[in-house]
Amino acid sequence: MKIGVIGATGKAGSKIVNEALSRGHQVTVLVRSAAKAKTLFGDKVTIIEKDAFALTKHDFNGLDAIVNAFSVPLGKHLAYQHIDLAVHLIHLLRGTQTPRILFILGGGSLQTEKGLLVDQLKQIPNSQDWIDTPESQYHELNFLRTVTNVNWVGVSPSQSFEDGPKTDYVLGKDQLLFDEHQKSVVTTGTMAAAILDELEHPTVRQARFTVRNK
Amino acid sequence: MKIGVIGATGKAGSKIVNEALSRGHQVTVLVRSAAKAKTLFGDKVTIIEKDAFALTKHDFNGLDAIVNAFSVPLGKHLAYQHIDLAVHLIHLLRGTQTPRILFILGGGSLQTEKGLLVDQLKQIPNSQDWIDTPESQYHELNFLRTVTNVNWVGVSPSQSFEDGPKTDYVLGKDQLLFDEHQKSVVTTGTMAAAILDELEHPTVRQARFTVRNK
Repeated sequence: MKIGVIGATGKAGSKIVNEALSRGHQVTVLVRSAAKAKTLFGDKVTIIEKDAFALTKHDFNGLDAIVNAFSVPLGKHLAYQHIDLAVHLIHLLRGTQTPRILFILGGGSLQTEKGLLVDQLKQIPNSQDWIDTPESQYHELNFLRTVTNVNWVGVSPSQSFEDGPKTDYVLGKDQLLFDEHQKSVVTTGTMAAAILDELEHPTVRQARFTVRNK
Repeated sequence: MKIGVIGATGKAGSKIVNEALSRGHQVTVLVRSAAKAKTLFGDKVTIIEKDAFALTKHDFNGLDAIVNAFSVPLGKHLAYQHIDLAVHLIHLLRGTQTPRILFILGGGSLQTEKGLLVDQLKQIPNSQDWIDTPESQYHELNFLRTVTNVNWVGVSPSQSFEDGPKTDYVLGKDQLLFDEHQKSVVTTGTMAAAILDELEHPTVRQARFTVRNK
């Protein structure tokens, strides 16, 4: 497949690019810094250097799938960019079936036995310093759920989203997943593998799924 | 004041431009067709000819307020443009206080004794042909309600939004308004007057109000 990755030089994005390359896909990275992409991926990818909000339909020409792995540093100041960029990208794709677009969402929009995770996160002392980020990603999912004329899918990590290699994994829908030790962890390698599996063999349409390490 | 009007040549927008001009404000119209604007307003306004989705921060330079009177024909095909454009405009203004931006929303997001109006509209036979429009405007309001770093305000018409001259009016918040004859009507002239009154003497911030003819 021809896969475009937005935010390709980030924690999640770089693993996705490498997973896609290892499976023989053609990868286009849509990044702010071509130099950084060059350092990470050499000549193995096509590079489009552009601010994500400046992307146009033309940049998606020929792609079968897009992964939006864009993220901003945790905190108040830029959190809104998650929802704003999601709408920008969806707008470019309105009324189309191809490319399919996968959004990496936060975990805050997942449900737990006590309700929505983001509502519980708000109870943590000093959460006002960073709560805007999971809230914006929750708004992002709520927006996506209104979209019926784009071929989109969302994926939320588990509560802890850690840098690490791929493992076997367990999938879920809208519930936060825990293992038998009550840990809720997914590594970046596992997330990348789950995303590539979903792109190669689509099982979810216009909905969100979640993943944890087995 | 310097006021920009998006969708200035439409049913609501043209009345707003004329009301603003009659009160001595300087008006910039942001329109798809400069020729149509010229026919309607002659040399009394500054014209910026541009697709609304192509507007940039630069186009808002020097404006004190923006009125978004953009709308698309009722129906499935383009309804999403209401929410998409709202996010585009908000994105351009993130982290600012000026210009203030006023959105003309639908009436479907108003509450009645039986619940949300848009949910009742869905019960009308063949509503699937046009329900996407009030639904998109409801999503638009839900999005705006998440926005805390832009100086926005929304206004919903009454159930019937008719072309007609300005009258005295009654304001409300989130409840659909009815007169003593159980009619829920606002005319375009009244809407324009209520909007200009709100721009000249702000009373609502980061919330939606509604208006009916008295």
